[in-house]
Amino acid sequence: MIEIPKGFRFAGVSAGIKSRAGAKDVSLIVSDAPCVAAGVYTTNQIVAAPVVLSRVRTPSESMRGIVVNSGNANACTGSRGHDDAVEMTRVAASACGASAEQFLVMSTGVIGRFLPMDKVRHGIASASQALGSSEDFFLNAVDGIMTTDNGRKIASRSATNSVGNFNLLGMCKGAGMIGPKMATMLAIVVTDAPLDPVDAQRTLQGAANRSFNCISVEGHMSTNDSLVLLAARPTASNPALHGSDLCSFAGDLNELCIELAKKIPDDGEGATHLIEIHVRGANTDADADAIARSIALSNLVKTAITGGDPNWGRIVSAAGYAGVPIQPHRTALLLNKIPLFDKGEPLPFDPKQVSHSIRGSKLTVIELDVGLGPGRATHWTTDLNTEYVRFNSEYTT
Amino acid sequence: MIEIPKGFRFAGVSAGIKSRAGAKDVSLIVSDAPCVAAGVYTTNQIVAAPVVLSRVRTPSESMRGIVVNSGNANACTGSRGHDDAVEMTRVAASACGASAEQFLVMSTGVIGRFLPMDKVRHGIASASQALGSSEDFFLNAVDGIMTTDNGRKIASRSATNSVGNFNLLGMCKGAGMIGPKMATMLAIVVTDAPLDPVDAQRTLQGAANRSFNCISVEGHMSTNDSLVLLAARPTASNPALHGSDLCSFAGDLNELCIELAKKIPDDGEGATHLIEIHVRGANTDADADAIARSIALSNLVKTAITGGDPNWGRIVSAAGYAGVPIQPHRTALLLNKIPLFDKGEPLPFDPKQVSHSIRGSKLTVIELDVGLGPGRATHWTTDLNTEYVRFNSEYTT
Repeated sequence: MIEIPKGFRFAGVSAGIKSRAGAKDVSLIVSDAPCVAAGVYTTNQIVAAPVVLSRVRTPSESMRGIVVNSGNANACTGSRGHDDAVEMTRVAASACGASAEQFLVMSTGVIGRFLPMDKVRHGIASASQALGSSEDFFLNAVDGIMTTDNGRKIASRSATNSVGNFNLLGMCKGAGMIGPKMATMLAIVVTDAPLDPVDAQRTLQGAANRSFNCISVEGHMSTNDSLVLLAARPTASNPALHGSDLCSFAGDLNELCIELAKKIPDDGEGATHLIEIHVRGANTDADADAIARSIALSNLVKTAITGGDPNWGRIVSAAGYAGVPIQPHRTALLLNKIPLFDKGEPLPFDPKQVSHSIRGSKLTVIELDVGLGPGRATHWTTDLNTEYVRFNSEYTT
Repeated sequence: MIEIPKGFRFAGVSAGIKSRAGAKDVSLIVSDAPCVAAGVYTTNQIVAAPVVLSRVRTPSESMRGIVVNSGNANACTGSRGHDDAVEMTRVAASACGASAEQFLVMSTGVIGRFLPMDKVRHGIASASQALGSSEDFFLNAVDGIMTTDNGRKIASRSATNSVGNFNLLGMCKGAGMIGPKMATMLAIVVTDAPLDPVDAQRTLQGAANRSFNCISVEGHMSTNDSLVLLAARPTASNPALHGSDLCSFAGDLNELCIELAKKIPDDGEGATHLIEIHVRGANTDADADAIARSIALSNLVKTAITGGDPNWGRIVSAAGYAGVPIQPHRTALLLNKIPLFDKGEPLPFDPKQVSHSIRGSKLTVIELDVGLGPGRATHWTTDLNTEYVRFNSEYTT
């Protein structure tokens, strides 16, 4: 049973953008009153029209909602794509009695095609007639943002602090074109906690750095990545969280974002393993992050895990070319808690035991200590198997 | 018919390091007289023992040869691995009447296992009895450096200049764990052209930058990459090339290295396509190189080519996250000469025509202009298909 934060309504409908008949592809997330909005977006220079539009509208304290379509990314579509994104916010806002600038817009799907705007307009109008605040409506909205996802990716938290009880509720989508170091994919978190817009933005960026920026499937940075937080607008009787209450909320938001983010590589296209990579002993957290990313992006590491293969040299060598210092003679590696390499020397181990530990669990845990300092980081990624290749060889055709 | 440069002998034998019975796995390349040697090596911090040893011995003007084993990388093997690499040069040199310091050593194969030194010693002794200077002996040496290669990778050039005619002859191996930005894999070029050691080193580094540093299979940088040039030692009667003769030789060496290097992604594990990526319009050549590498390393670009899929948004978006400036509104893309994207706008095209052009040829050519300046670069990589994944899921086990 999901607790829906007070003041938000949801809808998801089929507008015929996706080729599969009846598949939901337009969603609305609406705040009954003007609310606070924060956003973190892709750092790709090739950026989709909806991102260009949304990122200048956040942070804000007078937002009314988000309109989302799936099945078409509205990316690499030039000035016509920009006009279409503006039109989506105009139609959504008009149906909700708001102005266009009070809506954000997200799109996801194939790059380089113009939106079928007649279908989109009709879909937004239908969605605005189908808004509701119960779990079913929320799940409709979740369905409307999905593309190649195998299932819904949602998470919720209740946050209690000195001023009361609040709820956080999040959804995200994504299974491919997932690269670290940005807000990856589409994600929306709504909360009835009152937040100052600047605090909302800072808190959301902090949560993104430890969650959505630490996941990958194949490391390809999307043109459309968007993570948006909608929160209650503070009033005299419901003032913005601050001090320890704000810290406590930030902790809850971090946890929620990590829970959501891990669902993406866990559902990576064709993935049979979720790989969790812990790096410690780097000079700084940023260095540890670079090492974890280098390991996470290695196809040779990923295929070794697919095959249950204790080919640990691939992991250590990927750390060696991350572009940040490591201390080879003080480096140690554990795979699923089994020590394989220590102080620059290979350790005797039972290959069957390691192989069995990989094959026997969806989760594989890599722990690497590079022997230098206090820096640490955690990343999550998928293995790489033939299903991923088959799937991505046939995505647009 | 291969022209063998004067003064070099070759051998390749089976020492039982590889599991397949009779597979050649120890090679010797010997110069009858002390010769000039230059080397370019992996920039990975996790570096194999043979690389540690060879890189301090180049450049040199008193080298006598190279001993190579395949089937075991002698990487991540600590001090015992270092002792084993030294021993390999000692045994090879002793059999050739040279001192250990006059030999270089290369190893390639699985990481993290100790060399079976009894087999290695015996193999080097056998190879020293099997040296010869005709094509057959050269091809034996080529066979002895191969691992997952589907065929021999060799190239030759004759170089004519104001002081005479010289021959260049090269071999390389590599089909996986191939990442750009270093001398990738094992490669050996021998020439009877007389070169000053400093010129040899500078010329070899220049050739590496435009050849072996511009190729990738999956982008995983090896611990063992070594490219070595052996050249005649200049004498009073056979002085070192200089001026325009040296420039002309450098041009021949560039061409030879590019021809050799392209054979690696062309034979990439499981590859069905060789992808040639031309980037122009970047601020600098280094920026163009970064963009070409970002495209070359994208699994989504590679799987699209595998599938003959005109999903060009993947190419443009990979350029957008290369970490160097591009001008999206002045970017243009051609795939196999067919214009797909121009000035930030998608162009109408026939998907069947693009798909047909990809499926109908081993070579796919991507041309991207990012609209800023004079910088240009060319990279070569493979597609990514299910065979690569199958192969690399099962490599050590």
